[in-house]
Amino acid sequence: MESFYKNRNVLITGGLGFLGSNLALRLAALGAEITLVDTFLPGHGANWRNIQEVRDRVSVNICDIRDEHAMARMVAGKQTIFHIAGQTSHTDSMVDPFLDIDINCRGNMVFLEAVRKHNPAARIVYASTRAIYGAPVSVPVTESVRPNATDIYGVNKYAGEAYHMIYHRAHGIPVTVLRCSNGYGPRAQIEHPKFGILNWFVGLVLSAQKIRIFGDGAQLRDYTYADDFINAFLMAGIKDSAIGQIYNIGATSQIKFVDMVKKLIEIAGQGEYELVPWPPEYKKIEVGDFAYDITKAQTELGWSPSTDFETGLSKTFDYYRENLQHYLPADIA
Amino acid sequence: MESFYKNRNVLITGGLGFLGSNLALRLAALGAEITLVDTFLPGHGANWRNIQEVRDRVSVNICDIRDEHAMARMVAGKQTIFHIAGQTSHTDSMVDPFLDIDINCRGNMVFLEAVRKHNPAARIVYASTRAIYGAPVSVPVTESVRPNATDIYGVNKYAGEAYHMIYHRAHGIPVTVLRCSNGYGPRAQIEHPKFGILNWFVGLVLSAQKIRIFGDGAQLRDYTYADDFINAFLMAGIKDSAIGQIYNIGATSQIKFVDMVKKLIEIAGQGEYELVPWPPEYKKIEVGDFAYDITKAQTELGWSPSTDFETGLSKTFDYYRENLQHYLPADIA
Repeated sequence: MESFYKNRNVLITGGLGFLGSNLALRLAALGAEITLVDTFLPGHGANWRNIQEVRDRVSVNICDIRDEHAMARMVAGKQTIFHIAGQTSHTDSMVDPFLDIDINCRGNMVFLEAVRKHNPAARIVYASTRAIYGAPVSVPVTESVRPNATDIYGVNKYAGEAYHMIYHRAHGIPVTVLRCSNGYGPRAQIEHPKFGILNWFVGLVLSAQKIRIFGDGAQLRDYTYADDFINAFLMAGIKDSAIGQIYNIGATSQIKFVDMVKKLIEIAGQGEYELVPWPPEYKKIEVGDFAYDITKAQTELGWSPSTDFETGLSKTFDYYRENLQHYLPADIA
Repeated sequence: MESFYKNRNVLITGGLGFLGSNLALRLAALGAEITLVDTFLPGHGANWRNIQEVRDRVSVNICDIRDEHAMARMVAGKQTIFHIAGQTSHTDSMVDPFLDIDINCRGNMVFLEAVRKHNPAARIVYASTRAIYGAPVSVPVTESVRPNATDIYGVNKYAGEAYHMIYHRAHGIPVTVLRCSNGYGPRAQIEHPKFGILNWFVGLVLSAQKIRIFGDGAQLRDYTYADDFINAFLMAGIKDSAIGQIYNIGATSQIKFVDMVKKLIEIAGQGEYELVPWPPEYKKIEVGDFAYDITKAQTELGWSPSTDFETGLSKTFDYYRENLQHYLPADIA
């Protein structure tokens, strides 16, 4: 991995967010030349603290993926592009579907057109999401299960990955799509629950606020630690056999939502929770049980998650205990 | 059917195009109150000749489905809305993906938001397309086969129907989605081959131009006559059991592309064809064989196509022989 990424010219869109910044840190350790693009979309994960340790090692360019002319400059000359930027809130996509369409449909197309025109040989790894499966029509969910998104975000992220696959087939652009499951770990936003609910709970526990669980918390979920996602992105960017492929990236084991909360409180050594009724706006887009089949990623990409839940949670609490004031607004922290 | 639609307040978007105008004629015969919306998108099917026979029976409003304020007025007070307007060219969607996104993603959302805000009880029938299956991952193609669009149009039409289904589940809007296969018949545009290839061939034959078939013409296709589609729209709009459902609407029998052309020349009693190599821009988005499974529409909606190919072609030639000058530019006709 080091021999591949050393001195490699890499672009990360959404580079100051959760996945982007963790990826930047790893790529810096591997010796890559790194450019981060981020537009600091309000309510999203961009945070200067995320890249503090590599601030002098990376180039940061603040711009939107919807900015055609800026993106032309950003993609030119890059060897590998990790395309992670997007609108990421399920609930926001239902409140303002037009913003989601503008970013996750039109913005992805601005990005792809920039690549097609200015750097069609660039190796692209696109961060998609398990949200495209929505309430899955069958479980466990392999890559062949048809999309059934329950919110506009899930539809548009599917459109985004389909655009990538079409640009691969029609224009020869070497893309890989990773359908990422729920993630947690250092450098996620913890200010609100619109995405990354586990991270938000970490913030609640550390700021001595009670966790509220909607319903009985019996729905099964899987949680993947940041480092494991980063491994998947790096491996996808290396393997030629991953070109034109889609992979489910997530955990192999499921845990009940309520048990996740109990484990979190146990690891933290603090915190409490309560059960409350489902708010209607969440209930409408709730997807029920979810069990991910990651066999394809394991057998073809050689990737598996390797961080157990306790270890991941411990590292996450360690990070936020040290950096809490940079992730919570002053009036909460 | 007459008792249901008589005096019913109906809106048709794309009302001056192929499907919209044929639907308007039938609804006029059934005694409905009809408003047609069309923006006369260049290169698309809107044509005043299409509605000549019912011009004094229908209200026509020229506006774009992307026009938020106009759409608010258009949907208000309607009982049934047949939502057919869209960008419909596969090849154009690859040349100008942004226009396709703007109409088929954002425009559909403008329409749905107008319905949600101003008339959420309106019964919606949305014209989707078999293009969402693209190069189908399995045949025959049931509604459960996962989408695999080969062009941006196919992706965005899928997004459009997924928006409709989400607005049904989350906001209770009573929608039905019809995935329409290849259509032919009177009132289609015949000026260019960007959509409705069979109709274009009819125009070529009548204007004494040779038909060119790409490749060997061995790919299987199905063709559905306009009247059969109109039956499907009308039945979908009546049945409560169709709410929240998606139906494949197409022919039960397949025909080789080259045999379709031979049949067309036979019925017309004139015309000739030649085989030519695939142009690369078409080859890239060609979907191969396609066989539609319409069992769901047959058993649940009670719909089947009833016009045989010879009869449909005869009626089509009859129409265009009488009206050719209204469908071909002067320099071709």
